[in-house]
Amino acid sequence: MAKKLKTPFSETHKLSKTSSLLESIHYLLEWDQETYMPKDAIEFRSEQLELMASLVHKQRTAPSFKKALSKLINIETGSIVDNTLSAEEMAAAREWRRDYLQAVKLPSSYVKLLAKTSSKALHAWSEARRHNNFKAFAPHLEKLITLNKKKAEYLGYKDHPYDALLDLYEPEMKTAYLTELFGKLKISLTELLKSIQAKPKHPIGFIHQDYPVGHQMRFGHILLKGMGFSDTMSRLDTSSHPFCSALNPKDVRMTTRLIPTLPLSNIFSVIHEGGHGIYEAQLNDKMYGTPLCSAISLGIHESQSRFWETLIGRSLPFWKHYYPLLQKEFPDQLGSVPLDNFYRAVNNVEASMIRVEADEVTYCLHVIIRFELEKALIEGSLKVKDLPAAWNNKMKEYLGICPSADSEGCLQDIHWSMGAFGYFPTYALGNLYAAQFFATFEKAHSNWQERVAKGELGFIKEWLKENLHKYGRQYTPPEIIKKITGRALEATPYVNYLQQKYKEIYQLN
Amino acid sequence: MAKKLKTPFSETHKLSKTSSLLESIHYLLEWDQETYMPKDAIEFRSEQLELMASLVHKQRTAPSFKKALSKLINIETGSIVDNTLSAEEMAAAREWRRDYLQAVKLPSSYVKLLAKTSSKALHAWSEARRHNNFKAFAPHLEKLITLNKKKAEYLGYKDHPYDALLDLYEPEMKTAYLTELFGKLKISLTELLKSIQAKPKHPIGFIHQDYPVGHQMRFGHILLKGMGFSDTMSRLDTSSHPFCSALNPKDVRMTTRLIPTLPLSNIFSVIHEGGHGIYEAQLNDKMYGTPLCSAISLGIHESQSRFWETLIGRSLPFWKHYYPLLQKEFPDQLGSVPLDNFYRAVNNVEASMIRVEADEVTYCLHVIIRFELEKALIEGSLKVKDLPAAWNNKMKEYLGICPSADSEGCLQDIHWSMGAFGYFPTYALGNLYAAQFFATFEKAHSNWQERVAKGELGFIKEWLKENLHKYGRQYTPPEIIKKITGRALEATPYVNYLQQKYKEIYQLN
Repeated sequence: MAKKLKTPFSETHKLSKTSSLLESIHYLLEWDQETYMPKDAIEFRSEQLELMASLVHKQRTAPSFKKALSKLINIETGSIVDNTLSAEEMAAAREWRRDYLQAVKLPSSYVKLLAKTSSKALHAWSEARRHNNFKAFAPHLEKLITLNKKKAEYLGYKDHPYDALLDLYEPEMKTAYLTELFGKLKISLTELLKSIQAKPKHPIGFIHQDYPVGHQMRFGHILLKGMGFSDTMSRLDTSSHPFCSALNPKDVRMTTRLIPTLPLSNIFSVIHEGGHGIYEAQLNDKMYGTPLCSAISLGIHESQSRFWETLIGRSLPFWKHYYPLLQKEFPDQLGSVPLDNFYRAVNNVEASMIRVEADEVTYCLHVIIRFELEKALIEGSLKVKDLPAAWNNKMKEYLGICPSADSEGCLQDIHWSMGAFGYFPTYALGNLYAAQFFATFEKAHSNWQERVAKGELGFIKEWLKENLHKYGRQYTPPEIIKKITGRALEATPYVNYLQQKYKEIYQLN
Repeated sequence: MAKKLKTPFSETHKLSKTSSLLESIHYLLEWDQETYMPKDAIEFRSEQLELMASLVHKQRTAPSFKKALSKLINIETGSIVDNTLSAEEMAAAREWRRDYLQAVKLPSSYVKLLAKTSSKALHAWSEARRHNNFKAFAPHLEKLITLNKKKAEYLGYKDHPYDALLDLYEPEMKTAYLTELFGKLKISLTELLKSIQAKPKHPIGFIHQDYPVGHQMRFGHILLKGMGFSDTMSRLDTSSHPFCSALNPKDVRMTTRLIPTLPLSNIFSVIHEGGHGIYEAQLNDKMYGTPLCSAISLGIHESQSRFWETLIGRSLPFWKHYYPLLQKEFPDQLGSVPLDNFYRAVNNVEASMIRVEADEVTYCLHVIIRFELEKALIEGSLKVKDLPAAWNNKMKEYLGICPSADSEGCLQDIHWSMGAFGYFPTYALGNLYAAQFFATFEKAHSNWQERVAKGELGFIKEWLKENLHKYGRQYTPPEIIKKITGRALEATPYVNYLQQKYKEIYQLN
């Protein structure tokens, strides 16, 4: 067998693979911290994580990497230098350049300062939330906003400083586009919510009985097996917040949270994280170490979790198959509850204070509030001291309810205290992408309901793989949504989906 | 508060701490591989491990480290340069130098070749053992012996090439010393074994009933708790071979193996690994990153596991306390078995083929056979093709039994296939060190039996900490045994302990 030729591409790939391996080790350290690490080890673990993060950064910005990459693409202009590259390789070069520029634009003194400030802010936030004391957190938030403005300057932008931050999580997304998109979405969602609120509530008390956690976990495994996971390439564990961490496509680790009186929390966490996991598992592992074996964006990643959790996992056909299995696991709790009642329980709509507990209809409204507020904080049109009042006003306006304390208001989420501004919108974008992908999927598989009702899920995985997963970052987010659905991202498919679904559930006019 | 002064020592410490952190991450990758990693991830895991190993080596041999260390100690001659160092710091400098020289003496091309050859040999050994085909493994063993001779040349030695290999695992131990020590030990052990074999066997059938693994695991946790472990700084998991891996003194992870019909295997694995774990947990974490927060040698480490497993864990006082707890866990299996019978079962002596299943009396004989053979292989007085016959002859001579197949003979252990020559003796040394330490411990705590029979174990931990653990590598193995016991390492305390104990158990004359 001839030895594989050493090309400028393979050279770059080799160096980049080292970065990916280092990153994957960082993921293991994080996964272990959330699952099995004895808690006294936390200080040592922070040092291990910091060290690995610095090694990843060093490797991603190494002169040797720059030199190799420069043989593929002009780092200044972005024009391809190596004309022997395939289309996929050109895309990889484009994305490598994107990552490289992002990494080198932030001075390491800045990165360290941000890390240090966030670390203190995180601690302060945790205390402030516990004691419902926004004022104690405010000075930390001020500092983080200043640092994020600085970040935007380092990264550069044309129209709005928030563009630069957004781009870190959702490449090529713009503030103006998002403002319009979310503006429309907000109107449709608040209208839908009001019409639901005018209807009688469904009785869902049966869902808050005692569901022993051992059985919950077993059902979690049943779900993942149904979604095509095997235990030779995946795991399910428990942690205080559910997450999915893929060390590589052959090592996909999901977690769930088991609370006896909240069986739905486990079920939809598992399906949600399973959706993330399928994406990671179906990436092209032959291109591991390149952007072609990497997820496109946080929004697209979230679209995969929401595709499974909501469009499939909260559908009637899905529960036609899985409800009897769930009843078998919990005969005392659910044996006499008809499928329709259960279906209405998993799709119960009710305005509530906490984003992570929100239903499909209200979820994006929670996100839009955060988007509008963080945009205003970054552009300076909102002062930190006025944040709690602004938050509460928006809650009243969009959801019709008002937090009685900041701990269940503007202090509820961890993101800002971690210095992450521009992250929240990806949660809503995930729902929009998912619904738009789904509308196309439905055309290709018009009989999906029959098949899902029989427990078939493989064809959905396959469709997602062929249309999205196998490409990695070959296409940008705007390119991939256009390629798959023929249109730019819009709110209509999501709104249509919700209106149709909840019209039936709540018998709206 | 004044900022801590930057000294040449603190500079070296800082660089060395990075190496320790990288190593600890390597440990986590290994631990995870043996416990929770999905098995399809094995190829990616090998790449992660190889990468981390190369980073550790790079950091330990970095010019910046050499430069910093040179300000403390003359790397050529070993004489201290920085006269402001404390005694502990001088010892740290001495050990850093030792590690540094060892690391730089082996060219990286050699290290890679050895790793590659071992990797292939490991696979070949596993197949050869399965198919009982020594000939298929022989050429790999030849290569590894040649490479180990080469290693001895690189490392340097005065009297015997085996000295250089031994020194890697047991610093300052010499072949000549070991030959004499083991020679004496062999005579005493074979005599004791013969006198036991002349006596009637104890009935131990009750130990091979079905002991459900869930209860076995629970008892494992009871034992570790009794030994002073808490779950905030330690873990117990299962793996195919029990081991202890400490990422740092606050993160000590032990594993056991659960087989329904072998409850003693679990019990003594837990106590054994717990002994290793106590050593790691009681190192001085304030000096983490220096040799002062590191175990002295493999032999000393093994002395700690054997101290707990045999001298404490197989003692009658220990089971006076723990046997009722074990009976509670297994009332059907043990409820009607008197303590004395159980005590005789855990101290049953019987010549058998497999080292890892051997009792206290025969264990060292297994090790001595390996020592004599690998020494002969390295010095060239034994040819690989003659190894099986030589093995079988020694088994007959020392243990009075002969393997019917090489798979339960010279192919049983993994060590040679991993390229590790000079490792085996540390298993026997562990027993000798342990017994010699124990004789001193007994003088300090003449009432230990009463206290242990009440379930007290903390005072033993404390004695080990104050006499051994807290020093890390401040003293060399010969220094520490002298410091603690007043004498050089010898076989007598171990032989005395065995003779006295088994005289009673087997009613010898």
